[in-house]
Amino acid sequence: MYDLYDRDSARFGCVSRWRHQYLGLRSSTCLSFFSPTLTPSPISSRPNRNMATGDIGLIGLAVMGQNLILNMNDKGFNVVAYNRTTSKVDNFLANEAKGTNVQGAHSIQELVSKLKRPRKIILLVKAGDAVDDFIRQLEPHLEKGDIVIDGGNSHYPDSIRRTKELEAKGLLFVGSGVSGGEEGARHGPSLMPGGSTAAWPAIKEIFQKTAAQVNGEPCCDWVGETGSGHYVKMVHNGIEYGDMQLIAEAYDILKRGLGLGDDEIADIFLKWNTGVLDSFLIDITANILKFKDDDGEAVVNKILDQAGQKGTGKWTAIAALDAGTAVTLIGEAVFARCLSAIKEERVRASKVIAGPPKEPFRGDKQLFIDDLEQALYASKIISYTQGFMLMRQTAQELSWNLNYSGIAAMWRGGCIIKSVFLGDITKAYNKNSKLESLLFDDFFNKAVHKAQPGWRRVIAQAVLWGIPTPAFSTALAFFDGYRSEIVPANLLQAQRDYFGAHTFRVLPGKENDKFKAGEDIHVNWTGRGGNVSASTYNT
Amino acid sequence: MYDLYDRDSARFGCVSRWRHQYLGLRSSTCLSFFSPTLTPSPISSRPNRNMATGDIGLIGLAVMGQNLILNMNDKGFNVVAYNRTTSKVDNFLANEAKGTNVQGAHSIQELVSKLKRPRKIILLVKAGDAVDDFIRQLEPHLEKGDIVIDGGNSHYPDSIRRTKELEAKGLLFVGSGVSGGEEGARHGPSLMPGGSTAAWPAIKEIFQKTAAQVNGEPCCDWVGETGSGHYVKMVHNGIEYGDMQLIAEAYDILKRGLGLGDDEIADIFLKWNTGVLDSFLIDITANILKFKDDDGEAVVNKILDQAGQKGTGKWTAIAALDAGTAVTLIGEAVFARCLSAIKEERVRASKVIAGPPKEPFRGDKQLFIDDLEQALYASKIISYTQGFMLMRQTAQELSWNLNYSGIAAMWRGGCIIKSVFLGDITKAYNKNSKLESLLFDDFFNKAVHKAQPGWRRVIAQAVLWGIPTPAFSTALAFFDGYRSEIVPANLLQAQRDYFGAHTFRVLPGKENDKFKAGEDIHVNWTGRGGNVSASTYNT
Repeated sequence: MYDLYDRDSARFGCVSRWRHQYLGLRSSTCLSFFSPTLTPSPISSRPNRNMATGDIGLIGLAVMGQNLILNMNDKGFNVVAYNRTTSKVDNFLANEAKGTNVQGAHSIQELVSKLKRPRKIILLVKAGDAVDDFIRQLEPHLEKGDIVIDGGNSHYPDSIRRTKELEAKGLLFVGSGVSGGEEGARHGPSLMPGGSTAAWPAIKEIFQKTAAQVNGEPCCDWVGETGSGHYVKMVHNGIEYGDMQLIAEAYDILKRGLGLGDDEIADIFLKWNTGVLDSFLIDITANILKFKDDDGEAVVNKILDQAGQKGTGKWTAIAALDAGTAVTLIGEAVFARCLSAIKEERVRASKVIAGPPKEPFRGDKQLFIDDLEQALYASKIISYTQGFMLMRQTAQELSWNLNYSGIAAMWRGGCIIKSVFLGDITKAYNKNSKLESLLFDDFFNKAVHKAQPGWRRVIAQAVLWGIPTPAFSTALAFFDGYRSEIVPANLLQAQRDYFGAHTFRVLPGKENDKFKAGEDIHVNWTGRGGNVSASTYNT
Repeated sequence: MYDLYDRDSARFGCVSRWRHQYLGLRSSTCLSFFSPTLTPSPISSRPNRNMATGDIGLIGLAVMGQNLILNMNDKGFNVVAYNRTTSKVDNFLANEAKGTNVQGAHSIQELVSKLKRPRKIILLVKAGDAVDDFIRQLEPHLEKGDIVIDGGNSHYPDSIRRTKELEAKGLLFVGSGVSGGEEGARHGPSLMPGGSTAAWPAIKEIFQKTAAQVNGEPCCDWVGETGSGHYVKMVHNGIEYGDMQLIAEAYDILKRGLGLGDDEIADIFLKWNTGVLDSFLIDITANILKFKDDDGEAVVNKILDQAGQKGTGKWTAIAALDAGTAVTLIGEAVFARCLSAIKEERVRASKVIAGPPKEPFRGDKQLFIDDLEQALYASKIISYTQGFMLMRQTAQELSWNLNYSGIAAMWRGGCIIKSVFLGDITKAYNKNSKLESLLFDDFFNKAVHKAQPGWRRVIAQAVLWGIPTPAFSTALAFFDGYRSEIVPANLLQAQRDYFGAHTFRVLPGKENDKFKAGEDIHVNWTGRGGNVSASTYNT
């Protein structure tokens, strides 16, 4: 079999060396935010019957809300700020918003009265009942054509419902994904608005100017109907879980496998950040690994290895299961966090379960590190392939017209998953808006073929080392299943028909008098069961 | 690095050879059904005010319902059969039930009138609205203490609701898992009843006599409160998905990896069925592989490789995500079926994506096959470990008192996952009812340690071959994560705090003035963000 990582092995002729394929975007571009322009926007000069001067209202002055207000103010929009606990409004105006054009409101009525028509009000409050509560409070004060925007992390079925409810009352609803954390909100987030299509012309300018800009293009476009904005944001968050898990596995392999120190690992991430992996998350990983406590030890090594979750990764995994789409990498990323959470059980298990004998790495470290870069890149391609498959499947089911190149473009900047990589996905969908999956695109097809040998070697090595790589492994398993004309599901179908008379269909090319194409076939495997089928065929 | 499967490799000194550890149950015991006893049961001789003679009623005469009636009749119970389309009742009495004591009913009223008090009525109808419809039809005819039993594949939240609704009306409700397909229903299924605890004494005899028997013990016991019967049945079905996927992966490795023929593979499964893997599913797999069409070709090779699903595997994966328990193997098994379902896309992908160069296997095939048996066994141990972790987590959340040894014992016979293995799980929980996980039990702990080297070699080989092993791989990843005192989730927490101020906790032993135990800590990683935390710590 294979000799992995042996300097002298003839096999190394097949190691593909990476040359940079990206001459455009670099990390520095990704991270540079749009320069504020204080030119008053055309919206501000529209006729205004009641002397209201506010371009947009925002409810909810937690850190995200505050930063988004300051960002919109920087871009020349007049924002009216409101918060249920009104002392927060006063504090905000006296401190963070001091010297800006931001107006305060101490009641819903005051907020609405200060807004130009059609009113545009963004909610940045806790997802769930709080959103419905504020909508109910707003409704009596709004007029036909006014727009309520939910910028929280709402679950897309709620946004589907709210769009319908508000439209039935003559109002417009937008559920918008807002990504980028506090930094993104302050300087340019990725914005993913969907809902009442009629609302888009009225909010387009504010949204696109407030959003991050990459190569002069805003990381914001109209996503689609009803709950599609929050759906796409949910998938984005799921992909973020996947990206983070992949980085964590690479870090673990470098640390526990190769035995490298934090600074060595940071330098590897810094180098990767100049190539195909160039992205915000790789960049901050390098920064994190170099961030030292007062005693000189890296802070990352003082952090409890128990990952928190806010639920959107789980939502994506559940949506994938419901859609019947194999989004395995996000599933594994969510479960990896669950496993991290049972820290005390793991500590007890570590005392009674031994792994394989520890052996020093005797191969060429740099070749292995290059393989690892390829493993991470290929796994990331699979993760995004799966995410876009899920969006395609759901769009079909819910009759949404999703613009996939637009979605990739929205994610290129401003958000946690921003990367050079998303520029390549944008290009792939620009070339072919009906692309079946990323793996059918020439660029990504070549990329996975190049990455494949190293990807396999890294996983095989991790398996033998005893270092868990749930995300790397599931990505490869998906890749090998996806490219298999025949998978062993024929045996599953035989078993299901054997014990439950669930029927099967014939493999094309194998039809005969008993096994006819398009028919649900039951075989009396044992001679004991009847000829009654238990159910219709259902994939 | 490692030379896998090289006859001459010194490494083979560490291959652990399996000796049978099971002297008790064999497959033949597992598959022999309880001999019918026609001795009238004590229930039949209870006083009977209205001359009703029926011990139990059954609604729904599809194949499962018919077979369960015939089974209960064989065990000496008087069953009253009803179906919405009443011609099915007549057909059943005139054919399958001819010469038995089964009575028919042509209306709900007639059905109830023929039953002794307290009435016991089993519904075997399509899960969902049909169950609620029949309950509504039954209610006006029932009296306090009468028992409605749902034997369908209902989702456990429905059974929780129905238990509460019926108990509020003075009736009793039982949601019972019924497993074993048509064969099990006819000769002895695994029955998993839960719900109104007061119902158990009244149905115990019928249920335990109707169920499969293993070593003279019934594969039926009281599971627990409200929806626990259907919950445990759901987990059983999820585990069934996992077991089937593991067998499919082993079959694929033998077929595509080693290039063996159907009869050779069948013989391997037959041999495995005399060892630690002794189980119904291994047994039928051998039978399936030997089952030939008229032209001499194995039928399994004529079956379309597109697996159907009826949803209970998906429910288990979603329940795991909701509970925050890493039930990764069932998740991968469900997703593997999803991937199989997109057959046409796979066929197109197979034309444009190449795997690794095909190389003949040059090692010792028998050693590899023995490793594969260990890989399957170890992965199965992980799958059941995860399944029992999920039940434990949910029981804690819903305040159910689940008897884990009883659950394993119920699954030993009568159902699709019946196996010798479940006898060992029963023993483990009998030894320690509070067992943290199977991997802490001596027997299973030794078993995974022994299996580990072969398990790793098989996965590494499959990875290099390009044969997908999503279930084997995720089992190993879970194992390696579970036994890791430190997983790389510290980096995830650092990233989350970096971009979203989500806070982290300090690793025990690393506390200092800034990093205090029990506190949610936020670090200003960039010098740019504020000191506001975005959320409380939430694992």
